[in-house]
Amino acid sequence: MTRTVVASRSKTVIIGFDQPFCVIGERINPTGRKKLAAELEMGDFSTVEKDALDQVAAGAAILDINSGAVFSNKMAEDARYADNNFVEPALMKEMVERVQALVDVPLCIDSSVPGALENGLKAAEGRPLLNSVTGEEERLELVLPLVKKYDVPVVAISNDDTGISEDPDVRFAVAKKIVERAADFGIPAHDIVVDPLVMPIGAMATAGQQVFALVRRLREELGVNTTCGASNISFGLPNRHGINNAFLPMAAAAGMTSAIMNPLQAAATPKKIAERIAELEALGVVFPEGIDPEVLVPLIGLGSAKAGPSKEIEAIKAADFLLNNDPSGAAWIRFNKVAGGDEGARGARDGRRSRRRG
Amino acid sequence: MTRTVVASRSKTVIIGFDQPFCVIGERINPTGRKKLAAELEMGDFSTVEKDALDQVAAGAAILDINSGAVFSNKMAEDARYADNNFVEPALMKEMVERVQALVDVPLCIDSSVPGALENGLKAAEGRPLLNSVTGEEERLELVLPLVKKYDVPVVAISNDDTGISEDPDVRFAVAKKIVERAADFGIPAHDIVVDPLVMPIGAMATAGQQVFALVRRLREELGVNTTCGASNISFGLPNRHGINNAFLPMAAAAGMTSAIMNPLQAAATPKKIAERIAELEALGVVFPEGIDPEVLVPLIGLGSAKAGPSKEIEAIKAADFLLNNDPSGAAWIRFNKVAGGDEGARGARDGRRSRRRG
Repeated sequence: MTRTVVASRSKTVIIGFDQPFCVIGERINPTGRKKLAAELEMGDFSTVEKDALDQVAAGAAILDINSGAVFSNKMAEDARYADNNFVEPALMKEMVERVQALVDVPLCIDSSVPGALENGLKAAEGRPLLNSVTGEEERLELVLPLVKKYDVPVVAISNDDTGISEDPDVRFAVAKKIVERAADFGIPAHDIVVDPLVMPIGAMATAGQQVFALVRRLREELGVNTTCGASNISFGLPNRHGINNAFLPMAAAAGMTSAIMNPLQAAATPKKIAERIAELEALGVVFPEGIDPEVLVPLIGLGSAKAGPSKEIEAIKAADFLLNNDPSGAAWIRFNKVAGGDEGARGARDGRRSRRRG
Repeated sequence: MTRTVVASRSKTVIIGFDQPFCVIGERINPTGRKKLAAELEMGDFSTVEKDALDQVAAGAAILDINSGAVFSNKMAEDARYADNNFVEPALMKEMVERVQALVDVPLCIDSSVPGALENGLKAAEGRPLLNSVTGEEERLELVLPLVKKYDVPVVAISNDDTGISEDPDVRFAVAKKIVERAADFGIPAHDIVVDPLVMPIGAMATAGQQVFALVRRLREELGVNTTCGASNISFGLPNRHGINNAFLPMAAAAGMTSAIMNPLQAAATPKKIAERIAELEALGVVFPEGIDPEVLVPLIGLGSAKAGPSKEIEAIKAADFLLNNDPSGAAWIRFNKVAGGDEGARGARDGRRSRRRG
């Protein structure tokens, strides 16, 4: 039975076929989050810290820490900041230190910059997951020695020097090559977590079937755990959560054991709350001054005034139960108590959904 | 490629491995619906007709018609009404006639009473599905001749004279026996839709895994389509929809091709609306007289004032897309337009769910 052991200072998380699906929280990542990148540039780690707390509360077992920030203002003053080899190592160190000072969950050290990977490995307590190696020669030679030196598990992404193949057999072969190359370094297969690469079904109709078949094969033939960037599957489509919520249980049933994903349902924004109030006021409803948004928001169908677990987390918890990785449904019952009070049970009876009350 | 052909007067539905998952609407069934049974006893078919229209609008491809009503008042006056062999044949005929006068979808004739099955088969236009035969000797001898005579497909439930086995190998063997016995009657395997029997995971921890393994085996070894009473899986648990929403895509990924299920999300009840208004009034919110519930209900988080598609339908539509049985996602995009306006797309972007506006 394949078991990938990841640990923080005092907590161990096992990724494995007989374990609950491992949610790796993706939010601490300045790539594509301009506001977060700008905060980090000013030395403001408040969003990082809030995302750490919120994601763990929502059900993330591991937190991904990606240091890929571009410091545009500093770059204008000092040319060294144009080089991520200069920016990321120090940033990674500080992000890791701040996050693990706040939450006791294993981390996933995520960067394309070797110095950032090594700084993350140095700073992280316990046994972090490294993210990532690919089948590219340069990357193999660079990352696998780090994996060996620090004795950590690593995410292996199934692309190589020829890019990302649309042929799942090629992606399987790349994964196999990485596992074999790792073995040459003395790294066991159970420390490789393969990302078979999830394509958007909007662009490739067979993308879902490819993943399910690949995961099954990776598990049966290579005996490795698997992960993916789950939300890729729904890229460009309407109601992305609807696709993701079905994809994750299907992937878990095929044997996928973890995913890098957003565990959070965002809080209702002040703009959204104001819009909804305006819609109701247009019907003649009158709101008093100073109403508490935390109480109001769930009552006007906007979820919660605080970030809570996403529907994807609900789908994963249900899949755990359905795959007998949640003995007696204890985690399911606990999740629905926390997430919806007894609204969960009531919602089921009268045909509606549970709603988090913050 | 196994194809079970079912038809109404003018519409053909194919149940098959390369087809969208076939939703068989379960609502027209007085068993356990006292109010509906009482209406039927008084010759009132308005709920049947409403359920027919609502289920088809919500996405049911086939409508199950179950005549299992108990006419308690008539029974007191006339002892013959204590016998369902007396009650059901006439009731089935009228239900079938009324439903097919209203909607042009194939029917599933569902009764434990032979006379009701035959009356349903006589009354139904096109090629209905018969529900059901089991592995019980008496039932095989009784139902298979009807299946042959009327040249219809049949649901085959995997229990026999020894009851329902908890051993999936026994349930597979029962299904195999039914398929073989049907062959003796000249009924091909593609006209048998096997229900492998779904146990509640709350009572049997391996129930989900059993179904997934059985469905795969039934498909690979017997080449048959499969169905199930989907909601059984979550019996007795909190947030049943959360379990069902994950179960259906997982079952579809394992190869299940149809389910007998509730496609409807119930309309918000007047009681629920009044409660929500009272909660808001307690915060000082003032509602005007005569506000239109159809406009109000979606704005106070209660879904819709009219019945609409359940979240299970959304999960199935997503699974169709993910299994490449929805070319270009056309049905997914149409569903999200109809179900949520452009709210679906917006909901995905800002991390919340689409909401039907009625």
